[in-house]
Amino acid sequence: MHSFPEHLLKGHANFMDGRYVREKDRYRELAASGQTPSTMIIACCDSRAAPEMIFDAEPGSMFVLRNVANLVPTYQPDGGQHGTSAAIEFAVKALEIANIVVMGHGRCGGIKAALNPDHSPLDAGDFIGKWMSMLGELPGQLGTNSMMTASEQQTALERISIRNSIGNLRTFPYVADLEASGKLAVHGAWFDISTGELWVMNGDSGDFVRPEL
Amino acid sequence: MHSFPEHLLKGHANFMDGRYVREKDRYRELAASGQTPSTMIIACCDSRAAPEMIFDAEPGSMFVLRNVANLVPTYQPDGGQHGTSAAIEFAVKALEIANIVVMGHGRCGGIKAALNPDHSPLDAGDFIGKWMSMLGELPGQLGTNSMMTASEQQTALERISIRNSIGNLRTFPYVADLEASGKLAVHGAWFDISTGELWVMNGDSGDFVRPEL
Amino acid sequence: MHSFPEHLLKGHANFMDGRYVREKDRYRELAASGQTPSTMIIACCDSRAAPEMIFDAEPGSMFVLRNVANLVPTYQPDGGQHGTSAAIEFAVKALEIANIVVMGHGRCGGIKAALNPDHSPLDAGDFIGKWMSMLGELPGQLGTNSMMTASEQQTALERISIRNSIGNLRTFPYVADLEASGKLAVHGAWFDISTGELWVMNGDSGDFVRPEL
Amino acid sequence: MHSFPEHLLKGHANFMDGRYVREKDRYRELAASGQTPSTMIIACCDSRAAPEMIFDAEPGSMFVLRNVANLVPTYQPDGGQHGTSAAIEFAVKALEIANIVVMGHGRCGGIKAALNPDHSPLDAGDFIGKWMSMLGELPGQLGTNSMMTASEQQTALERISIRNSIGNLRTFPYVADLEASGKLAVHGAWFDISTGELWVMNGDSGDFVRPEL
Repeated sequence: MHSFPEHLLKGHANFMDGRYVREKDRYRELAASGQTPSTMIIACCDSRAAPEMIFDAEPGSMFVLRNVANLVPTYQPDGGQHGTSAAIEFAVKALEIANIVVMGHGRCGGIKAALNPDHSPLDAGDFIGKWMSMLGELPGQLGTNSMMTASEQQTALERISIRNSIGNLRTFPYVADLEASGKLAVHGAWFDISTGELWVMNGDSGDFVRPEL
Repeated sequence: MHSFPEHLLKGHANFMDGRYVREKDRYRELAASGQTPSTMIIACCDSRAAPEMIFDAEPGSMFVLRNVANLVPTYQPDGGQHGTSAAIEFAVKALEIANIVVMGHGRCGGIKAALNPDHSPLDAGDFIGKWMSMLGELPGQLGTNSMMTASEQQTALERISIRNSIGNLRTFPYVADLEASGKLAVHGAWFDISTGELWVMNGDSGDFVRPEL
Repeated sequence: MHSFPEHLLKGHANFMDGRYVREKDRYRELAASGQTPSTMIIACCDSRAAPEMIFDAEPGSMFVLRNVANLVPTYQPDGGQHGTSAAIEFAVKALEIANIVVMGHGRCGGIKAALNPDHSPLDAGDFIGKWMSMLGELPGQLGTNSMMTASEQQTALERISIRNSIGNLRTFPYVADLEASGKLAVHGAWFDISTGELWVMNGDSGDFVRPEL
Repeated sequence: MHSFPEHLLKGHANFMDGRYVREKDRYRELAASGQTPSTMIIACCDSRAAPEMIFDAEPGSMFVLRNVANLVPTYQPDGGQHGTSAAIEFAVKALEIANIVVMGHGRCGGIKAALNPDHSPLDAGDFIGKWMSMLGELPGQLGTNSMMTASEQQTALERISIRNSIGNLRTFPYVADLEASGKLAVHGAWFDISTGELWVMNGDSGDFVRPEL
């Protein structure tokens, strides 16, 4: 067998000597009383876009689902095993969170694969191809727009996909109901890895702007 | 529309003034050259068990999938949209990561729901019920063992589930092949929210021990 | 007759008491020796995007053409009166400038009119309609992309149009020749009125980035 | 590819640290509400005669067209692409500006070329020659007046040309109509690069005088 990765053991030792020392009481309390996060973040697996880093989060503050390209499917209660839908259900019904944020990011490998199905290192018949097919016709429609650079198309699809996921989120009856009654708010955000900037979606127009400016 | 959560905006401002200032060069490089994480972590959505916190991780170092109860399904190339499988495929085939760590944690709400299907706030017919059904007969078998306390049963199932997920991981042909050739290693870990301790799985016996002791 | 606008007379008095006092020698020298600007800027008439403000320019440093939406036509030596082409010719052949910058900006009224020919306050049969028709099929192709918000489409077309103008610039034989011999460089830029930021075009990819970040 | 001119990047940095800091609120407001300039300036591309400098203008206050020698053609709705006419139409019909100022200046290269068609570095068959041919017989008529020095002829033609452009402006039906109804005023001005003085045209006589004296 392989031994546990040394960099993870060292990282955990840093955690024990640093954050845990400072936040011991909080961890004890979170273990004893259970979690009560106010916010669910639906983010990408990308190693460069961890929500807890980007939002300088405290333990216990955000319930975080991460899948490839931060996609949300439509509500499909067909008896299948839907991991993303299960997490949404748990967050909304069991944890009664007040906010759901769908957070995309620049240079997303999943979005890039969706835009370049033929030149991807991944076969479109594989899981990634099927997973990204959740975007339906969106990548193809955008891809025909040859006036935009590859990078511009990528950013555009990253944002289109966030809006699409938010639309899909609202097909969950309890999400729609709670949002209508003002108990739940749904948000979009996009993280720029290079500049560190957070672009926040305007809920009315769907546009992304930097709130700090 | 609702405005973007204030605590997230404030947290991001902290990030920009803190971590981003210190690691600006790293973020620039990660954006320009792409991600090359050596490790994939499959973890739970739980707000108290963020891998980046527990491993004091640097940006770019870990590709992180998070679903409810850190479950991995078996390899099912049936044309459906499998988010967890897509992330595994992306990590192994596109990113060529060297390690996969399935990390569970104590007091997991998903595991608790699996152990208490009738007393859960969640209907077994909902997404959570279906999702946790990935554990098959395991919760039921354990539940008949009335000699263990509820807490002991929970910890036991959390670890059983990690071993089960690792077994399922090995049904992916490329995972099995790469592991056999020594290019990929698969690990298990369990995080204790209360004490901050990391328990690491012994690959031969399946036991969980604290490596720092 | 109407008297000369008071705000202009007052502004000129400020100029005489301020900038002219400080730069009297420069103005005298510029008058005596003629202009030798190193750069031509092709910009929009928009009152919010004056190149001299944005680049904090000194008198004599930039030769500035401004038309609606900073458009450049293709080389059409048909004997007609082409104001933009005449300015380019004057800058390149008489002034021997070293750089041409096509600078667009956000919220451009001309681009907006091109995207909304039916809802514009201006009749498509008027001069504006004809002028913006220089973009040919570009607005129509982009406008069919209903996945992007109106604001996203506008920004996209502003940048597409800059790349289109740069392509048209290169149909001028002397521009192409001098660029090939390294004596002339052609650049693109986009100004964000709200944030004051300058986005500079990457000559290879056509993408726009903020160089100051 | 060539990198973006360093002097422009530096100038923009000065803008961000200076004017933008002082006028941030104004830029934000101008971006949000759109431009509402009261005045259109038709000026020359010359690097020494930027209207915003000469009138110490604030962002948003003047809509500025700049072409070689600040010429205005007659109204020619022939379906061609007329950049100057498009800008006039946009200013008058879309922005509903209250003043149009045709501003010439001393030592104008375009006017000089028109006076010296044979000794110009520019072939009369090129764009500049065609563009300046908008002045028709005016340069030729003046050139036969051998009693005036070359410098006197130049200044004379600069002013003749301004009056000519104003006459052409009035061939636009909406300009004539709005001027008749008192909603639009048309002005002439001439800038002396050497002394910084502004000479303003008397609308009745056509003479240019210095209003500050």
